[in-house]
Amino acid sequence: MNLPVDKKKISIVCFSGDFDKMVAAFTVATGAAATNREVTMFFTFWGLNALKKKKGRVATGNSLMAKAFNFLMGGINNLPLSRLNFFGASSKLMTMMMKQHNVATLPELVEAAHALGIRIVACEMAMKILEVEQSDMIEEVESVVGVATFLNESENSHIIFI
Amino acid sequence: MNLPVDKKKISIVCFSGDFDKMVAAFTVATGAAATNREVTMFFTFWGLNALKKKKGRVATGNSLMAKAFNFLMGGINNLPLSRLNFFGASSKLMTMMMKQHNVATLPELVEAAHALGIRIVACEMAMKILEVEQSDMIEEVESVVGVATFLNESENSHIIFI
Amino acid sequence: MNLPVDKKKISIVCFSGDFDKMVAAFTVATGAAATNREVTMFFTFWGLNALKKKKGRVATGNSLMAKAFNFLMGGINNLPLSRLNFFGASSKLMTMMMKQHNVATLPELVEAAHALGIRIVACEMAMKILEVEQSDMIEEVESVVGVATFLNESENSHIIFI
Repeated sequence: MNLPVDKKKISIVCFSGDFDKMVAAFTVATGAAATNREVTMFFTFWGLNALKKKKGRVATGNSLMAKAFNFLMGGINNLPLSRLNFFGASSKLMTMMMKQHNVATLPELVEAAHALGIRIVACEMAMKILEVEQSDMIEEVESVVGVATFLNESENSHIIFI
Repeated sequence: MNLPVDKKKISIVCFSGDFDKMVAAFTVATGAAATNREVTMFFTFWGLNALKKKKGRVATGNSLMAKAFNFLMGGINNLPLSRLNFFGASSKLMTMMMKQHNVATLPELVEAAHALGIRIVACEMAMKILEVEQSDMIEEVESVVGVATFLNESENSHIIFI
Repeated sequence: MNLPVDKKKISIVCFSGDFDKMVAAFTVATGAAATNREVTMFFTFWGLNALKKKKGRVATGNSLMAKAFNFLMGGINNLPLSRLNFFGASSKLMTMMMKQHNVATLPELVEAAHALGIRIVACEMAMKILEVEQSDMIEEVESVVGVATFLNESENSHIIFI
Protein backbone atom coordinates (compact mmCIF):
# COMPACT_ATOMS: atom_id res chain seq x y z
CA MET A 1 0.00 0.00 0.00
CA ASN A 2 1.32 3.36 -0.97
CA LEU A 3 0.86 6.31 1.26
CA PRO A 4 -0.75 9.22 -0.53
CA VAL A 5 1.81 11.87 -1.37
CA ASP A 6 0.76 15.49 -1.22
CA LYS A 7 0.87 17.21 -4.55
CA LYS A 8 3.32 20.07 -4.90
CA LYS A 9 1.48 23.37 -4.92
CA ILE A 10 2.16 26.51 -6.93
CA SER A 11 0.40 29.84 -6.50
CA ILE A 12 0.90 32.42 -9.22
CA VAL A 13 0.13 36.05 -8.42
CA CYS A 14 -0.85 37.52 -11.79
CA PHE A 15 -0.25 41.19 -11.14
CA SER A 16 1.09 42.78 -14.30
CA GLY A 17 -1.52 42.16 -16.96
CA ASP A 18 1.00 42.64 -19.76
CA PHE A 19 0.18 40.42 -22.74
CA ASP A 20 3.55 38.69 -22.78
CA LYS A 21 3.66 38.17 -19.01
CA MET A 22 0.11 36.75 -19.03
CA VAL A 23 1.18 34.27 -21.72
CA ALA A 24 4.14 33.37 -19.50
CA ALA A 25 1.92 33.00 -16.42
CA PHE A 26 -0.54 30.70 -18.19
CA THR A 27 2.28 28.73 -19.80
CA VAL A 28 3.91 28.11 -16.41
CA ALA A 29 0.51 27.37 -14.84
CA THR A 30 -0.62 24.85 -17.45
CA GLY A 31 2.84 23.29 -17.59
CA ALA A 32 2.87 22.89 -13.81
CA ALA A 33 -0.64 21.43 -13.78
CA ALA A 34 0.35 19.01 -16.52
CA THR A 35 3.33 17.89 -14.42
CA ASN A 36 1.03 17.07 -11.51
CA ARG A 37 1.11 20.22 -9.39
CA GLU A 38 -1.92 21.87 -7.82
CA VAL A 39 -2.03 25.38 -9.27
CA THR A 40 -3.86 28.52 -8.17
CA MET A 41 -3.75 31.73 -10.20
CA PHE A 42 -4.55 34.83 -8.15
CA PHE A 43 -5.36 37.79 -10.40
CA THR A 44 -4.86 41.25 -9.00
CA PHE A 45 -4.59 44.81 -10.22
CA TRP A 46 -3.65 45.01 -13.94
CA GLY A 47 -4.01 41.23 -14.08
CA LEU A 48 -7.78 41.60 -13.63
CA ASN A 49 -7.96 42.90 -17.21
CA ALA A 50 -7.27 39.41 -18.50
CA LEU A 51 -10.44 38.17 -16.79
CA LYS A 52 -12.95 40.79 -17.88
CA LYS A 53 -15.96 39.48 -19.80
CA LYS A 54 -15.91 42.43 -22.18
CA LYS A 55 -12.80 41.99 -24.27
CA GLY A 56 -12.44 45.62 -25.34
CA ARG A 57 -12.43 48.96 -23.51
CA VAL A 58 -15.46 49.53 -21.25
CA ALA A 59 -15.78 52.19 -18.56
CA THR A 60 -16.66 49.79 -15.73
CA GLY A 61 -17.17 51.14 -12.19
CA ASN A 62 -19.08 53.90 -10.44
CA SER A 63 -16.63 56.70 -9.67
CA LEU A 64 -15.21 58.77 -12.48
CA MET A 65 -11.67 57.68 -11.59
CA ALA A 66 -12.48 53.97 -11.65
CA LYS A 67 -14.32 54.41 -14.95
CA ALA A 68 -11.32 56.21 -16.46
CA PHE A 69 -8.87 53.55 -15.26
CA ASN A 70 -10.99 50.64 -16.42
CA PHE A 71 -11.54 52.25 -19.81
CA LEU A 72 -7.84 52.94 -20.30
CA MET A 73 -6.82 49.47 -19.12
CA GLY A 74 -9.40 47.70 -21.29
CA GLY A 75 -9.90 43.93 -21.44
CA ILE A 76 -8.02 40.89 -22.71
CA ASN A 77 -7.83 42.37 -26.23
CA ASN A 78 -6.04 45.48 -24.93
CA LEU A 79 -3.26 43.87 -22.91
CA PRO A 80 -0.08 45.71 -23.91
CA LEU A 81 3.28 44.13 -24.53
CA SER A 82 5.64 44.90 -21.62
CA ARG A 83 8.06 46.43 -24.15
CA LEU A 84 7.96 47.61 -27.78
CA ASN A 85 4.21 47.99 -27.41
CA PHE A 86 3.66 50.43 -30.31
CA PHE A 87 0.26 51.48 -28.98
CA GLY A 88 -1.05 47.95 -28.82
CA ALA A 89 -0.05 46.75 -32.29
CA SER A 90 2.57 44.41 -30.87
CA SER A 91 0.20 42.13 -28.96
CA LYS A 92 -1.64 41.49 -32.21
CA LEU A 93 1.63 40.87 -34.05
CA MET A 94 2.77 38.55 -31.29
CA THR A 95 -0.50 36.60 -31.46
CA MET A 96 0.06 36.19 -35.21
CA MET A 97 3.60 34.97 -34.60
CA MET A 98 2.32 32.51 -31.98
CA LYS A 99 -0.35 31.14 -34.34
CA GLN A 100 2.18 30.86 -37.16
CA HIS A 101 4.28 28.56 -34.99
CA ASN A 102 1.32 26.61 -33.57
CA VAL A 103 1.83 27.99 -30.08
CA ALA A 104 -1.33 28.28 -27.97
CA THR A 105 -2.69 31.85 -27.92
CA LEU A 106 -3.79 33.63 -24.73
CA PRO A 107 -7.53 32.77 -24.91
CA GLU A 108 -6.58 29.16 -25.67
CA LEU A 109 -4.30 29.13 -22.64
CA VAL A 110 -7.10 30.47 -20.38
CA GLU A 111 -9.36 27.64 -21.59
CA ALA A 112 -6.62 25.05 -21.14
CA ALA A 113 -5.97 26.31 -17.60
CA HIS A 114 -9.63 25.90 -16.72
CA ALA A 115 -9.78 22.45 -18.32
CA LEU A 116 -6.72 21.33 -16.34
CA GLY A 117 -8.44 22.23 -13.07
CA ILE A 118 -6.32 25.27 -12.31
CA ARG A 119 -8.06 27.51 -9.78
CA ILE A 120 -8.59 31.00 -11.17
CA VAL A 121 -9.38 33.47 -8.38
CA ALA A 122 -9.63 37.26 -8.31
CA CYS A 123 -8.32 39.67 -5.67
CA GLU A 124 -11.06 41.26 -3.57
CA MET A 125 -9.06 44.38 -2.68
CA ALA A 126 -8.05 45.21 -6.26
CA MET A 127 -11.65 44.73 -7.40
CA LYS A 128 -12.81 47.11 -4.68
CA ILE A 129 -10.26 49.77 -5.63
CA LEU A 130 -10.95 49.45 -9.36
CA GLU A 131 -14.72 48.93 -8.82
CA VAL A 132 -14.87 45.71 -10.82
CA GLU A 133 -17.62 43.22 -9.92
CA GLN A 134 -17.52 39.45 -10.27
CA SER A 135 -20.36 39.80 -12.82
CA ASP A 136 -17.93 41.79 -15.00
CA MET A 137 -15.67 38.78 -15.24
CA ILE A 138 -15.54 35.56 -17.26
CA GLU A 139 -17.17 32.50 -15.74
CA GLU A 140 -13.83 30.69 -15.40
CA VAL A 141 -13.26 32.86 -12.29
CA GLU A 142 -13.98 30.46 -9.45
CA SER A 143 -14.23 33.01 -6.67
CA VAL A 144 -13.24 36.39 -5.31
CA VAL A 145 -10.85 36.06 -2.38
CA GLY A 146 -9.07 38.36 0.04
CA VAL A 147 -5.28 38.51 0.26
CA ALA A 148 -5.29 36.88 3.72
CA THR A 149 -7.38 33.95 2.48
CA PHE A 150 -5.15 33.54 -0.55
CA LEU A 151 -2.02 33.57 1.60
CA ASN A 152 -3.55 31.14 4.08
CA GLU A 153 -4.40 28.73 1.30
CA SER A 154 -0.90 29.16 -0.12
CA GLU A 155 0.86 28.21 3.10
CA ASN A 156 2.54 25.22 1.49
CA SER A 157 2.79 26.63 -2.00
CA HIS A 158 5.57 28.18 -3.96
CA ILE A 159 4.46 31.72 -4.67
CA ILE A 160 5.47 33.18 -8.04
CA PHE A 161 4.83 36.87 -8.72
CA ILE A 162 4.39 37.78 -12.36
CA MET B 1 4.26 17.97 24.56
CA ASN B 2 4.34 19.61 21.17
CA LEU B 3 7.54 20.03 19.31
CA PRO B 4 8.12 23.59 18.24
CA VAL B 5 7.33 24.01 14.58
CA ASP B 6 9.46 26.35 12.54
CA LYS B 7 7.57 29.27 11.11
CA LYS B 8 7.31 29.39 7.34
CA LYS B 9 9.60 32.07 5.97
CA ILE B 10 9.09 34.45 3.07
CA SER B 11 11.70 36.79 1.61
CA ILE B 12 10.50 39.47 -0.75
CA VAL B 13 13.03 41.13 -3.04
CA CYS B 14 11.57 44.61 -3.62
CA PHE B 15 13.31 45.56 -6.83
CA SER B 16 10.93 47.58 -8.96
CA GLY B 17 9.93 50.55 -6.87
CA ASP B 18 6.76 51.12 -8.91
CA PHE B 19 3.97 52.48 -6.73
CA ASP B 20 1.55 49.68 -7.53
CA LYS B 21 4.15 46.93 -7.14
CA MET B 22 5.26 48.38 -3.80
CA VAL B 23 1.64 48.32 -2.60
CA ALA B 24 1.48 44.69 -3.76
CA ALA B 25 4.76 43.84 -1.99
CA PHE B 26 3.65 45.36 1.31
CA THR B 27 0.19 43.79 1.02
CA VAL B 28 1.70 40.33 0.50
CA ALA B 29 4.26 40.98 3.28
CA THR B 30 1.75 42.16 5.90
CA GLY B 31 -0.72 39.46 4.90
CA ALA B 32 1.97 36.80 5.25
CA ALA B 33 3.11 38.17 8.61
CA ALA B 34 -0.51 38.21 9.80
CA THR B 35 -0.85 34.55 8.82
CA ASN B 36 2.14 33.64 10.95
CA ARG B 37 5.04 33.72 8.52
CA GLU B 38 8.43 35.26 9.20
CA VAL B 39 8.89 37.93 6.55
CA THR B 40 11.97 39.79 5.31
CA MET B 41 11.73 42.55 2.72
CA PHE B 42 14.99 43.17 0.88
CA PHE B 43 14.95 46.50 -0.95
CA THR B 44 17.23 46.94 -3.90
CA PHE B 45 17.69 49.23 -6.86
CA TRP B 46 14.49 51.20 -7.67
CA GLY B 47 12.95 49.74 -4.52
CA LEU B 48 15.30 51.86 -2.41
CA ASN B 49 13.22 54.90 -3.37
CA ALA B 50 10.42 53.69 -1.14
CA LEU B 51 12.75 53.87 1.87
CA LYS B 52 14.29 57.32 1.42
CA LYS B 53 13.72 59.73 4.29
CA LYS B 54 13.16 62.65 1.94
CA LYS B 55 9.86 61.94 0.27
CA GLY B 56 10.41 64.14 -2.79
CA ARG B 57 13.20 64.52 -5.34
CA VAL B 58 16.64 65.13 -3.81
CA ALA B 59 19.98 64.83 -5.61
CA THR B 60 21.55 62.36 -3.13
CA GLY B 61 25.06 61.01 -3.78
CA ASN B 62 28.50 62.31 -4.66
CA SER B 63 29.06 61.68 -8.33
CA LEU B 64 27.11 63.63 -10.91
CA MET B 65 25.59 60.44 -12.30
CA ALA B 66 24.36 59.20 -8.93
CA LYS B 67 22.95 62.65 -8.18
CA ALA B 68 21.08 62.70 -11.49
CA PHE B 69 19.67 59.21 -10.98
CA ASN B 70 18.59 59.85 -7.41
CA PHE B 71 16.98 63.15 -8.36
CA LEU B 72 15.08 61.59 -11.27
CA MET B 73 13.99 58.57 -9.22
CA GLY B 74 12.87 60.69 -6.25
CA GLY B 75 11.39 59.31 -3.02
CA ILE B 76 8.21 57.57 -1.90
CA ASN B 77 6.08 60.45 -3.23
CA ASN B 78 7.52 60.01 -6.72
CA LEU B 79 7.00 56.29 -7.22
CA PRO B 80 5.46 55.88 -10.67
CA LEU B 81 2.66 53.54 -11.60
CA SER B 82 4.03 50.61 -13.63
CA ARG B 83 1.58 51.55 -16.40
CA LEU B 84 -0.64 54.53 -17.34
CA ASN B 85 1.66 56.70 -15.24
CA PHE B 86 0.77 60.07 -16.83
CA PHE B 87 3.90 61.76 -15.47
CA GLY B 88 3.17 60.75 -11.89
CA ALA B 89 -0.48 61.83 -11.68
CA SER B 90 -1.69 58.24 -11.50
CA SER B 91 -0.04 57.34 -8.20
CA LYS B 92 -1.86 60.24 -6.61
CA LEU B 93 -5.16 59.21 -8.22
CA MET B 94 -4.58 55.63 -7.11
CA THR B 95 -3.95 56.77 -3.52
CA MET B 96 -7.25 58.68 -3.63
CA MET B 97 -9.06 55.61 -4.93
CA MET B 98 -7.48 53.51 -2.16
CA LYS B 99 -8.54 55.98 0.55
CA GLN B 100 -12.05 56.18 -0.89
CA HIS B 101 -12.41 52.42 -0.41
CA ASN B 102 -10.69 52.35 3.00
CA VAL B 103 -7.71 50.42 1.68
CA ALA B 104 -4.42 51.07 3.50
CA THR B 105 -2.19 53.51 1.61
CA LEU B 106 1.51 52.94 0.99
CA PRO B 107 2.86 54.87 4.03
CA GLU B 108 0.29 53.09 6.21
CA LEU B 109 1.45 49.76 4.83
CA VAL B 110 5.11 50.59 5.61
CA GLU B 111 4.10 51.38 9.21
CA ALA B 112 2.00 48.23 9.49
CA ALA B 113 4.89 46.13 8.16
CA HIS B 114 7.19 47.56 10.81
CA ALA B 115 4.58 47.04 13.55
CA LEU B 116 4.10 43.40 12.51
CA GLY B 117 7.82 42.73 12.96
CA ILE B 118 8.63 42.41 9.30
CA ARG B 119 12.37 42.86 8.72
CA ILE B 120 13.08 45.72 6.35
CA VAL B 121 16.62 45.55 4.99
CA ALA B 122 18.41 47.44 2.23
CA CYS B 123 20.79 46.08 -0.42
CA GLU B 124 24.40 47.11 0.13
CA MET B 125 25.43 46.81 -3.50
CA ALA B 126 22.56 48.92 -4.86
CA MET B 127 23.26 51.58 -2.22
CA LYS B 128 26.91 51.63 -3.26
CA ILE B 129 26.07 51.99 -6.96
CA LEU B 130 23.44 54.68 -6.37
CA GLU B 131 25.48 56.34 -3.56
CA VAL B 132 22.66 56.19 -1.03
CA GLU B 133 23.65 56.08 2.68
CA GLN B 134 21.71 54.46 5.52
CA SER B 135 21.33 57.97 6.98
CA ASP B 136 19.34 58.89 3.85
CA MET B 137 16.75 56.27 4.73
CA ILE B 138 13.79 55.96 7.10
CA GLU B 139 14.46 54.50 10.54
CA GLU B 140 12.30 51.46 9.82
CA VAL B 141 15.30 50.12 7.84
CA GLU B 142 16.80 47.56 10.21
CA SER B 143 20.10 47.11 8.46
CA VAL B 144 22.09 47.24 5.25
CA VAL B 145 23.01 43.75 4.05
CA GLY B 146 24.94 42.21 1.19
CA VAL B 147 23.32 39.88 -1.30
CA ALA B 148 25.26 36.86 0.02
CA THR B 149 24.09 37.52 3.58
CA PHE B 150 20.53 37.98 2.43
CA LEU B 151 20.63 34.73 0.46
CA ASN B 152 22.23 32.88 3.36
CA GLU B 153 19.51 34.04 5.70
CA SER B 154 16.88 33.10 3.12
CA GLU B 155 18.07 29.51 2.79
CA ASN B 156 14.74 28.14 4.00
CA SER B 157 12.57 30.94 2.68
CA HIS B 158 10.38 31.27 -0.33
CA ILE B 159 11.89 34.09 -2.36
CA ILE B 160 9.46 36.35 -4.21
CA PHE B 161 10.82 38.90 -6.67
CA ILE B 162 8.66 41.98 -7.16
CA MET C 1 28.49 8.38 8.57
CA ASN C 2 26.56 11.32 7.30
CA LEU C 3 23.74 10.90 4.90
CA PRO C 4 24.10 13.06 1.85
CA VAL C 5 21.88 16.11 2.09
CA ASP C 6 20.23 17.33 -1.04
CA LYS C 7 21.28 20.78 -2.11
CA LYS C 8 18.60 23.44 -2.09
CA LYS C 9 17.57 24.25 -5.65
CA ILE C 10 16.63 27.55 -7.23
CA SER C 11 15.25 28.06 -10.73
CA ILE C 12 15.19 31.57 -12.09
CA VAL C 13 12.91 32.33 -15.02
CA CYS C 14 14.65 35.22 -16.79
CA PHE C 15 11.77 36.71 -18.70
CA SER C 16 12.18 40.46 -18.79
CA GLY C 17 15.54 41.12 -20.38
CA ASP C 18 15.78 44.59 -18.86
CA PHE C 19 19.38 45.48 -18.12
CA ASP C 20 18.78 46.12 -14.41
CA LYS C 21 16.63 43.02 -13.94
CA MET C 22 19.25 40.87 -15.72
CA VAL C 23 21.90 42.23 -13.33
CA ALA C 24 19.55 41.35 -10.46
CA ALA C 25 18.92 37.85 -11.84
CA PHE C 26 22.62 37.08 -12.25
CA THR C 27 23.43 38.59 -8.85
CA VAL C 28 20.83 36.39 -7.14
CA ALA C 29 21.95 33.38 -9.21
CA THR C 30 25.67 33.72 -8.48
CA GLY C 31 24.99 34.56 -4.83
CA ALA C 32 22.79 31.49 -4.48
CA ALA C 33 25.38 29.27 -6.20
CA ALA C 34 28.08 30.67 -3.91
CA THR C 35 25.94 29.77 -0.89
CA ASN C 36 25.71 26.18 -2.04
CA ARG C 37 22.46 26.07 -3.99
CA GLU C 38 21.97 24.34 -7.32
CA VAL C 39 20.87 27.05 -9.72
CA THR C 40 19.20 26.90 -13.13
CA MET C 41 18.52 30.01 -15.18
CA PHE C 42 15.78 29.57 -17.76
CA PHE C 43 15.83 32.35 -20.36
CA THR C 44 12.65 33.12 -22.21
CA PHE C 45 11.17 35.85 -24.34
CA TRP C 46 12.94 39.21 -23.83
CA GLY C 47 15.47 37.40 -21.65
CA LEU C 48 16.83 35.63 -24.74
CA ASN C 49 18.43 38.92 -25.79
CA ALA C 50 20.97 38.57 -23.01
CA LEU C 51 22.19 35.31 -24.58
CA LYS C 52 22.56 36.31 -28.21
CA LYS C 53 26.04 35.92 -29.67
CA LYS C 54 25.77 39.17 -31.61
CA LYS C 55 25.83 41.89 -28.99
CA GLY C 56 24.16 44.56 -31.10
CA ARG C 57 21.03 44.76 -33.23
CA VAL C 58 20.74 41.99 -35.85
CA ALA C 59 17.60 41.03 -37.77
CA THR C 60 17.67 37.32 -36.82
CA GLY C 61 14.86 35.03 -38.00
CA ASN C 62 13.06 34.18 -41.21
CA SER C 63 9.71 35.93 -41.16
CA LEU C 64 9.55 39.70 -41.48
CA MET C 65 7.90 40.00 -38.08
CA ALA C 66 10.52 37.95 -36.27
CA LYS C 67 13.26 39.92 -38.03
CA ALA C 68 11.70 43.20 -36.96
CA PHE C 69 11.30 42.06 -33.35
CA ASN C 70 14.81 40.69 -33.10
CA PHE C 71 16.27 43.82 -34.62
CA LEU C 72 14.34 46.10 -32.28
CA MET C 73 15.16 44.00 -29.22
CA GLY C 74 18.86 43.73 -30.07
CA GLY C 75 21.45 41.88 -28.00
CA ILE C 76 23.14 42.21 -24.63
CA ASN C 77 24.40 45.70 -25.54
CA ASN C 78 20.85 46.92 -26.18
CA LEU C 79 19.14 45.78 -22.98
CA PRO C 80 17.12 48.77 -21.77
CA LEU C 81 16.79 49.93 -18.20
CA SER C 82 13.32 49.06 -16.85
CA ARG C 83 12.83 52.77 -16.07
CA LEU C 84 14.48 56.08 -17.00
CA ASN C 85 15.86 54.39 -20.07
CA PHE C 86 16.53 57.55 -22.12
CA PHE C 87 16.73 55.59 -25.39
CA GLY C 88 19.38 53.22 -24.05
CA ALA C 89 21.80 55.76 -22.60
CA SER C 90 21.00 54.68 -19.04
CA SER C 91 22.30 51.13 -19.32
CA LYS C 92 25.65 52.55 -20.39
CA LEU C 93 25.61 55.07 -17.53
CA MET C 94 24.66 52.32 -15.10
CA THR C 95 27.54 50.15 -16.32
CA MET C 96 29.89 53.10 -15.71
CA MET C 97 28.49 53.55 -12.20
CA MET C 98 28.92 49.84 -11.52
CA LYS C 99 32.54 49.87 -12.71
CA GLN C 100 33.26 53.00 -10.66
CA HIS C 101 32.21 51.13 -7.53
CA ASN C 102 33.91 47.86 -8.50
CA VAL C 103 30.65 46.02 -8.92
CA ALA C 104 30.68 43.17 -11.46
CA THR C 105 29.19 44.22 -14.80
CA LEU C 106 26.67 42.14 -16.73
CA PRO C 107 29.12 40.27 -19.03
CA GLU C 108 31.30 39.55 -15.97
CA LEU C 109 28.25 38.18 -14.16
CA VAL C 110 27.41 35.88 -17.10
CA GLU C 111 30.97 34.53 -17.00
CA ALA C 112 30.86 34.10 -13.22
CA ALA C 113 27.55 32.24 -13.48
CA HIS C 114 29.05 29.83 -15.98
CA ALA C 115 32.18 29.36 -13.87
CA LEU C 116 30.07 28.61 -10.78
CA GLY C 117 28.31 25.79 -12.60
CA ILE C 118 24.98 27.53 -12.96
CA ARG C 119 22.89 25.88 -15.68
CA ILE C 120 21.96 28.35 -18.41
CA VAL C 121 19.10 27.05 -20.54
CA ALA C 122 16.93 28.67 -23.20
CA CYS C 123 13.19 28.34 -23.72
CA GLU C 124 12.26 26.31 -26.79
CA MET C 125 8.85 27.93 -27.27
CA ALA C 126 10.14 31.51 -27.13
CA MET C 127 12.93 30.63 -29.57
CA LYS C 128 10.36 29.17 -31.93
CA ILE C 129 8.12 32.25 -31.76
CA LEU C 130 11.01 34.67 -32.17
CA GLU C 131 12.84 32.43 -34.67
CA VAL C 132 16.08 32.38 -32.73
CA GLU C 133 18.38 29.34 -33.18
CA GLN C 134 20.80 27.87 -30.65
CA SER C 135 23.60 28.81 -33.08
CA ASP C 136 22.58 32.47 -32.58
CA MET C 137 23.42 32.20 -28.91
CA ILE C 138 26.55 32.27 -26.75
CA GLU C 139 28.21 28.96 -25.97
CA GLU C 140 27.41 29.27 -22.27
CA VAL C 141 23.87 28.13 -23.17
CA GLU C 142 23.85 24.49 -22.10
CA SER C 143 20.69 23.45 -23.90
CA VAL C 144 17.34 24.42 -25.31
CA VAL C 145 14.49 23.00 -23.23
CA GLY C 146 10.71 22.99 -23.31
CA VAL C 147 8.61 24.47 -20.55
CA ALA C 148 7.38 21.05 -19.41
CA THR C 149 10.94 19.72 -19.12
CA PHE C 150 12.02 22.82 -17.23
CA LEU C 151 9.08 22.51 -14.83
CA ASN C 152 9.71 18.81 -14.35
CA GLU C 153 13.32 19.45 -13.48
CA SER C 154 12.26 22.25 -11.13
CA GLU C 155 9.90 20.07 -9.12
CA ASN C 156 11.86 20.61 -5.93
CA SER C 157 13.14 24.10 -6.74
CA HIS C 158 12.07 27.50 -5.66
CA ILE C 159 10.98 29.25 -8.84
CA ILE C 160 11.75 32.96 -9.09
CA PHE C 161 10.29 34.96 -11.99
CA ILE C 162 12.31 38.01 -13.01
